[in-house]
Amino acid sequence: VNQDQTNLRIPGPTPLPDEVREAGARQMINHRGPEFAALLERITSGVQPWFGTSRDVVLLSAAGTGGLEAAIVNTLSPGDRALAVTIGAFGDRFASIAATYGARVDRFEVEWGLAADPDAVREALRAGPPDAWRAVLLTHNETSTGVANDIAALSRAIHETAPDALVIVDGISAVGAVPFSMDEWGVDVLVSGSQKAWMAAPGMSLVSLSDRAWLATERALMPRFYLDLARHRADAAEGQTPWTPSVAVMYQLDAGLTLMEREGREAVFARHIACAEAARAGLAEAGLDLLAEQTHASRTVTAAWLPAGTDPKAFSAALRSRGVVVAGGQGKLKGRILRIGHLGWVTVEDVEMAVAAIAEVSRSGSATSVAAGA
Amino acid sequence: VNQDQTNLRIPGPTPLPDEVREAGARQMINHRGPEFAALLERITSGVQPWFGTSRDVVLLSAAGTGGLEAAIVNTLSPGDRALAVTIGAFGDRFASIAATYGARVDRFEVEWGLAADPDAVREALRAGPPDAWRAVLLTHNETSTGVANDIAALSRAIHETAPDALVIVDGISAVGAVPFSMDEWGVDVLVSGSQKAWMAAPGMSLVSLSDRAWLATERALMPRFYLDLARHRADAAEGQTPWTPSVAVMYQLDAGLTLMEREGREAVFARHIACAEAARAGLAEAGLDLLAEQTHASRTVTAAWLPAGTDPKAFSAALRSRGVVVAGGQGKLKGRILRIGHLGWVTVEDVEMAVAAIAEVSRSGSATSVAAGA
Repeated sequence: VNQDQTNLRIPGPTPLPDEVREAGARQMINHRGPEFAALLERITSGVQPWFGTSRDVVLLSAAGTGGLEAAIVNTLSPGDRALAVTIGAFGDRFASIAATYGARVDRFEVEWGLAADPDAVREALRAGPPDAWRAVLLTHNETSTGVANDIAALSRAIHETAPDALVIVDGISAVGAVPFSMDEWGVDVLVSGSQKAWMAAPGMSLVSLSDRAWLATERALMPRFYLDLARHRADAAEGQTPWTPSVAVMYQLDAGLTLMEREGREAVFARHIACAEAARAGLAEAGLDLLAEQTHASRTVTAAWLPAGTDPKAFSAALRSRGVVVAGGQGKLKGRILRIGHLGWVTVEDVEMAVAAIAEVSRSGSATSVAAGA
Repeated sequence: VNQDQTNLRIPGPTPLPDEVREAGARQMINHRGPEFAALLERITSGVQPWFGTSRDVVLLSAAGTGGLEAAIVNTLSPGDRALAVTIGAFGDRFASIAATYGARVDRFEVEWGLAADPDAVREALRAGPPDAWRAVLLTHNETSTGVANDIAALSRAIHETAPDALVIVDGISAVGAVPFSMDEWGVDVLVSGSQKAWMAAPGMSLVSLSDRAWLATERALMPRFYLDLARHRADAAEGQTPWTPSVAVMYQLDAGLTLMEREGREAVFARHIACAEAARAGLAEAGLDLLAEQTHASRTVTAAWLPAGTDPKAFSAALRSRGVVVAGGQGKLKGRILRIGHLGWVTVEDVEMAVAAIAEVSRSGSATSVAAGA
């Protein structure tokens, strides 16, 4: 981040590198023409190595939540039994989507700040009974708590226990920034979003399906039209999308992928590890307690408890006056925590700057509410 | 359009004026912060006069088709009876969306190239019986044929005949470029899209509901989550959207609206009339037969039959080599017509340039297929 601009440290949208920003200013093209077909092909094939898949990647003109809805309604039927493993607000949202469309959802709820234990998930599936499950919904990186689930281990546990269940993963806030091996891990549906690791503006969702998930789309009876994945796949074979796509966001995705490829996968992953370590170390040093169990701390977002007696709005305003924007808590954590995003276009220096500002505000006591006293 | 760039004459996405393009390159902001709240408020209140409504305008991060789906699933329940008045491919799509979600849809089909006759719609509703109808789906401007329906007259006919039916209008490809009086005409749901008259990139849909349509959302049982309008309206009251919105497209919408306001509504409408007249006159002069009945010719898109024996791909390639991109036919008109878009950022000169190129290619005979002979 340049010194002269806001240090936007929320877990998406992430700041945009200059090349990505500028791509957003390109003139429109015919979305039924040859330039568009080439653009679509570059993005979908460019995303594959980061997803760890050789399967098609479908681009939807929708936020990540639309991608999650697509993952559900294209693969399930009303009445289908699904286990929603939820470790935070986004896991809860995923469960709500499935329930909204008539799935019979059992929520496996984990205390916020912890990751899901594969053995405990196995137990929950056994109670099912195991062959009744049609899907298990997992959150790869829970943005509301800064906790990363071990998808490889969870997927293995699910396949071993409930072989007919599709493993459907919300990978929105980390895929691209951390290693992911969709095919190798047996993940059936993976969803990501343009405004996260891909360093582009929000507005597009990326979805990939395993062969058996594509088969499931042929039987799935939940209604869908705008988010119909099979229709998107069929049109992509002709270099098109069924509806007018978010062309400008695609320009930015293309530019972001080019930068990611230039940096190299290992370097991107290492940079995110370094940023996450800087966030955790800096917040701890500033005297803030971290929310996540540290063995499963996210590499893309770190949450910390606000000091006792903090007025969250005053805290946020004091940070803002220092050029730093962080995220607050969601759901039951609203007003109680702060969250630093460190994914996409981010350096260790950006994180250190943000953490230094947090330490300063925290020590100054300027954001302590009167009610809490001194 | 500048001389040095492609004359993109498809009915959306339309070319972007420089100010709009450049707005797409702005840095990201926190979509839960004060700058975003101000941006959202500017757009929604800016759109109201063009919709002709004093009601809330909801922004969805989705293409126009997503907006149409939102119009259906938020106001209807499975089994509800709907009359889909379809005069082309987009009317057919609207009917399909309603049927996909379980509405009992009767299609009132009008020959492609003609507009819907209010008296004939009245007859169809009477056969219903009239009080069985829950909704009538209308296309304001049928992009596939270049025909504009008389929404004021159709809405009046519907309210008089089937008073319980919501009047749901696909206004995607003309609202903003032609006068529209949603409140005065009794339109219950109106949908538009960012990439049309608003001169922005695709990716956002604009939806407004009458008071009785908002009431209908409380009873409507079709499932929705990503496209839940009530949730969007509730969050908009806090200056937010429920899911991460297409921030860059919103920057562009804001910039486009500013340009439209600066030009003035009457001037914008007059410019579109002049462009449409130039398109029709030029194509007729070039010897091409127009598709639409001229009493209901669209002001934003003009369709013409390709000369007998034309190879549509060769025709399109020949135009492209002259710097002009037009659209082809959809559905049953594929390969048989061409369509010129003249909405959003367009001048009479742009249209004349495009029409001159069409005349040249047409007269040269270079795009006549061998099979058709000479």
